[in-house]
Order: sequence, then C-alpha cells, then structure tokens
Amino acid sequence: MYVVIMAGGSGTRFWPLSRQKHPKQFLDIIGGKPMLRQTYERISELVPDRNVFVVVGKSHEQETKKILADKKDIHILVEPFGRNTAPCIGLAAMVISQQGNDLPIVILPADHFIAQPDVFRSDIQKAGDLAGKTNCIVTIGIVPVRPETGYGYIERESEKIENGIYRVKSFVEKPDFETAKRYLESGRYFWNAGIFVARPSVLLGEFEKHMPDFYSNLVRLADHIGKEDFKTYLEALYEKAPNISFDYAIMEKTETEVYVVPSACGWSDVGSWYSLYELRATREGDDKGNLLDGSGKFFNCRNCFVMNRGTQWIAMLGLKDVLIVNTDDAILVADLKMHQQVRKITEHLKQSDKDELL
Amino acid sequence: MYVVIMAGGSGTRFWPLSRQKHPKQFLDIIGGKPMLRQTYERISELVPDRNVFVVVGKSHEQETKKILADKKDIHILVEPFGRNTAPCIGLAAMVISQQGNDLPIVILPADHFIAQPDVFRSDIQKAGDLAGKTNCIVTIGIVPVRPETGYGYIERESEKIENGIYRVKSFVEKPDFETAKRYLESGRYFWNAGIFVARPSVLLGEFEKHMPDFYSNLVRLADHIGKEDFKTYLEALYEKAPNISFDYAIMEKTETEVYVVPSACGWSDVGSWYSLYELRATREGDDKGNLLDGSGKFFNCRNCFVMNRGTQWIAMLGLKDVLIVNTDDAILVADLKMHQQVRKITEHLKQSDKDELL
Repeated sequence: MYVVIMAGGSGTRFWPLSRQKHPKQFLDIIGGKPMLRQTYERISELVPDRNVFVVVGKSHEQETKKILADKKDIHILVEPFGRNTAPCIGLAAMVISQQGNDLPIVILPADHFIAQPDVFRSDIQKAGDLAGKTNCIVTIGIVPVRPETGYGYIERESEKIENGIYRVKSFVEKPDFETAKRYLESGRYFWNAGIFVARPSVLLGEFEKHMPDFYSNLVRLADHIGKEDFKTYLEALYEKAPNISFDYAIMEKTETEVYVVPSACGWSDVGSWYSLYELRATREGDDKGNLLDGSGKFFNCRNCFVMNRGTQWIAMLGLKDVLIVNTDDAILVADLKMHQQVRKITEHLKQSDKDELL
Repeated sequence: MYVVIMAGGSGTRFWPLSRQKHPKQFLDIIGGKPMLRQTYERISELVPDRNVFVVVGKSHEQETKKILADKKDIHILVEPFGRNTAPCIGLAAMVISQQGNDLPIVILPADHFIAQPDVFRSDIQKAGDLAGKTNCIVTIGIVPVRPETGYGYIERESEKIENGIYRVKSFVEKPDFETAKRYLESGRYFWNAGIFVARPSVLLGEFEKHMPDFYSNLVRLADHIGKEDFKTYLEALYEKAPNISFDYAIMEKTETEVYVVPSACGWSDVGSWYSLYELRATREGDDKGNLLDGSGKFFNCRNCFVMNRGTQWIAMLGLKDVLIVNTDDAILVADLKMHQQVRKITEHLKQSDKDELL
C-alpha cells in the first residue's frame, strides 16, 4: 500500500496555540507528539517509509521536515497554494501512479486523533485488501458514539458484502440534532472521517471524469515529475486548480462502487478546544473534571481546561467551564462551551493589524 | 501639622500583583500612581515635606525611597519588624515630639483611595484645627454609602459640638448585615478608616496609660533619636513591642475625649480585587461592565476585570464575573466574587516551596 498524509490545513480553531505558521497538525496537544507525527507513526507499521507521502503547504515545509527529520525515506510533496483536498489527492495519485505500480493508496488527514490505533490499522488493512482487488473506493466509516451534528455521515446499504464491509448508499451532509439521533439509533450511518483507500488508477479515473480540466493539467505535469522544472508546472497546475474538497468534487458524484469499513477505533477530528477537553479530561482530568496541561493549580474549579505553554504559573479560582490557553505572546480565557466563537478573535486580529498574533 | 503615613503593611489580597516585596501600598492599581505616592500627594498641600513621616518595613525601604525620590525633605522611618499600627504610631509620635513642638499629627494608612481629595483635605484641616486647640483625639468618620460588613464603625453622640464635628460615643466592631443596615439608616455611624489626628503629647500620654511597658522603652529610645545607635535601640523596642493595632490598644480603651469629623470624601480601603473592580468599573468600564487595564479585548463578556501587567495580549471570550491578573511569572484567573479566597492560593504557595511567587 501507499499512504498519503494530507497536512495542508491552516485552521485557527486552536488559537492562540495554532497560528498561521503553526496549524493544528503540528501541535502537540494530545498524545504527546505533534498530530502529524502521530498520524505517520500510527500507519507506519503497515507500509514502508518510501511509500509514505506527506502533502503540505509551502509555509509549513520546514516544520514538516523537522517533525519527520529521522525518516529520510518519506516523500514530502509541497503544495504551492492551499486548494483543499481534491487537488491534493489528485497530485498524490498522479505522483504515485508514476512510480509504475497500482497499489492502493490510503488517504489520511494529518490532524485526527485515534484512541485505538490497533483497531484502526486492522480496518485500514481490510479497506486496503478490498481496494487492491477491485476498482472501487473504500472509505472508513467511524461508528458514531453520540448524535454529532458537526460531521458528515456515510449511509450504508443493508447487507454486508464480506468481512464486515458494506456498500455505501450515500454521503450525507451534517444533520440537525434530531436527524443525528435517528442516524445514531439506526446503526446504518457512520461518521465520514475523510479517510479513503483506492488504487491510483481508480482515483485518476475519477478526476478524469469529474474534474476533466484539472485532470488534463495533471497529465501535463506527469512528465515533469522528478525533473528540475517540476515546481514550475506544479505552480501552473495549482494556479488553475479549483479550491474544492475531494468529498464534494468526487465522492458525492462518483458512479464507481464505494464501500465502507465500519471502524470503532476511537476516532476524533479534535475539532475544537472543547472536543480536545472532552477527549483528554476522561483520562487525565481530576475528579472535578478539571484538566491541566502545564504549570498551575485549580482551587475550587469544575470542568476547566488549562493549556499552559507560557512561562507563568497559573492559579485558577472558583471557575466553572473555563478554558485558559497561555502562550508567549497571547492568552485566551474563554467559556469552554463557546469554542465556536474563537474565530471572532482571529477575525478581530486580522482587522486590527495584529497579524503577528495570527 | 505633621503627617504620619503608615506604609508597613504586607497583604496578599492583590496577589499576583502584590507580593511580599511589593505589597498593595506600592501598587499602581487605581489613580495612575502607587497608592503610597497618592497618599502623600493628597495631603502634601496641607503640610511641608519636612513634616511628613513615612513609616515602612525594612524590606520596603528601597521601594519607598524610589517612589518618593524627588521629595528629599520627607522623613522615612524604617521599622525593623512589622508590629501592626500601635508601635508604629508610638514611634512616630515620639520622634515628632522630639522635634520640640506639639503640633497635631495626622495619621494616615498608605493604601487607601479617596475619590474627592478636596473634601478629604478640608475635613482633615477641621480635625487638625480641633486637635491643635484641645487635648483630644479626632478621627475621620467616613459617611457610609452601603451597609458594609467589612469595616469597623464609629458611633457619634447626638449633638454637634461645632463645625459639623461630633463627640464619639463608641467604636464598634464589624457588624452583621442587618446591624450594618441599621447603622446606615440611623445616620449616626461612620466607617472607621483608621485616620486619626492628635498632638504628640496626647498620643504619648495614651501610650503611657494603656501600653506602659512599650512606653518606657519608647522613652529609652528617645535619647538616641538622630544618633548612630538609634537602630540598635529601635530593634530592642520592636523586639519587645506587642503586635497590636492602635484601634485595639488605644482607641477602644481611651478615656480622653474623642471626636469624629464626618467625611463624604469617596473613601475606600480598596480591600480586594472586587472592591477595586467596583471602584474603577463605574468610571472606566465599558457598557457591559467590563474593565480592561492593559493589552487585550473582550468578546461577549460581562462584568469582567482584566489587569494585564504581563507581555501577552489577552482575549476574553464569553465570560461573566471573571477576574484575570497577568504578571511576568504568575497568572490569576478567578471568579471575581470569590476574591476572599485569594489567600488560599498564597497559602498553597507557602506550603509548596513556591516562595518566588509570594
């Protein structure tokens, strides 16, 4: 198999810890290592390093190389601009197909957490086995554990085809709460984690069909892979590439068979400070639900989360549901449940010439 | 007149801004200057600098000299140990009496805030005039504006003696809320701000009567004032001195006539982060009751108070009644109404070898 780790994101939901130059996939916020490094280590038992491709934005190339410095065989593909996941996957599929074989590619976001990597690897292997012997796309469907309204869902057909795998009936958008509850109870819906397995020829066929202009440019690029002028052609490709997700551009339109491997691997996209708190507090929190990462102490607090990466000692007194994030140049103190509004702060920073804090 | 500014305190209620080496009277938290400096400036229109005595603890001598560096004529009396206000006032009275005259002394705590200094000066002058022509002690009684349970009260007799001044009937301890309400409604009770005016001979007479041992040692010290061995005798005096307040040792026992000048001067002892917030938010707060001193911004907050003396920019999101104090080596995030519990933190620091933060 091949693995493509997509590390091109640049979110601000973990501000002030995440910054434009240091987005979530580079943060060491859960699991004790940068998320990108964990994503690589989680999968590295299944594939040799020379089959691992990390796709990353230009401004994050150095950070990526640092995090993977001891893994010289890994390929790092640098995108000249961010164009969401479709161009990223197309590029990786073309580069891999030029290596002369058609082994399945596992496509993984770099910034997800998985509590049970053994289960995950076993499910990925299942998906890889199926993708390797058919012309289909296999997705990993996370078995839902709550009526989550923040994720897209994958609906399966009724009957298993083999080995616990199902044919996919449809991809559905983020539901409202009542719908999410119904999904959860039905047992026929899974969270879409953006993890896909397919052979390069299958993927490129999809791009040819659903993004023909992009595909033509991709073919034009193919001759220059490994050559001096590759960068120039890559820039030309990306300049014309639409900014669109693989789900939207391909998965929702494909006529190819799509399968889903249900996986109860303890997956989370760690989408906000609150979800990070929920993930970690269960294991690391005190008996009042407080979680402290760094130097400080709680006095009469409940359900508070402190991430202290600054130099100060922090005393928390009489607080409930409060998030504190301390860094060298910025501090966030927030209602832990208002995590969705962190973007208000980054928008303010943009508008008020405080770029150094972004 | 003479003025004695008592700057010997060492509270921790403004932790982490106040520290053992930098207690409240040295903080610039209201009025734009250190409180000690404001106390001096407030009274300096009434007396020449050479008549001003600042009594301060050994560990705060340098800080005091720095704050008053441009006022070379002010006397700074350094106490070898803190022994509450009675020894402090006895010492100052003896030193002043040795200057050879018997002008009234105004005794002032260094760490109070007064919103209307003109009113205050006028009332002090009244008290000084009365004290100068009688053998009495004159107190300033703050006209109460709420049923405060945190202060001691001064009860007056019914009839004015002159110029709006009353004879004092009794000094009463901190009341419960119902009693405080009754005090407020009666119009006969004032807050005891610890401000007294009396001639040195009157004060020394009181010490002779109510603290005879201390008085004997004080007399022994008198011969050494201005001499090389003064420090040695001063240490001997303080080693034996009881740790007791002037209110408790003298005012509650005195048989001398005591008068009270009611004063509506906007006084506050600024006893906690919350009272500081209340004092400042009215004038400086935004329309949601938020008060920001330093660099940062509120997003959807109400009644929050941020004192940012660190280097970081602080974002506050969705908070209510939260206090944030940022310094170079410690941060406090607290429920603004739990200000009484700040001492829990300093107690913890003592017990856990974090002396550098005290």
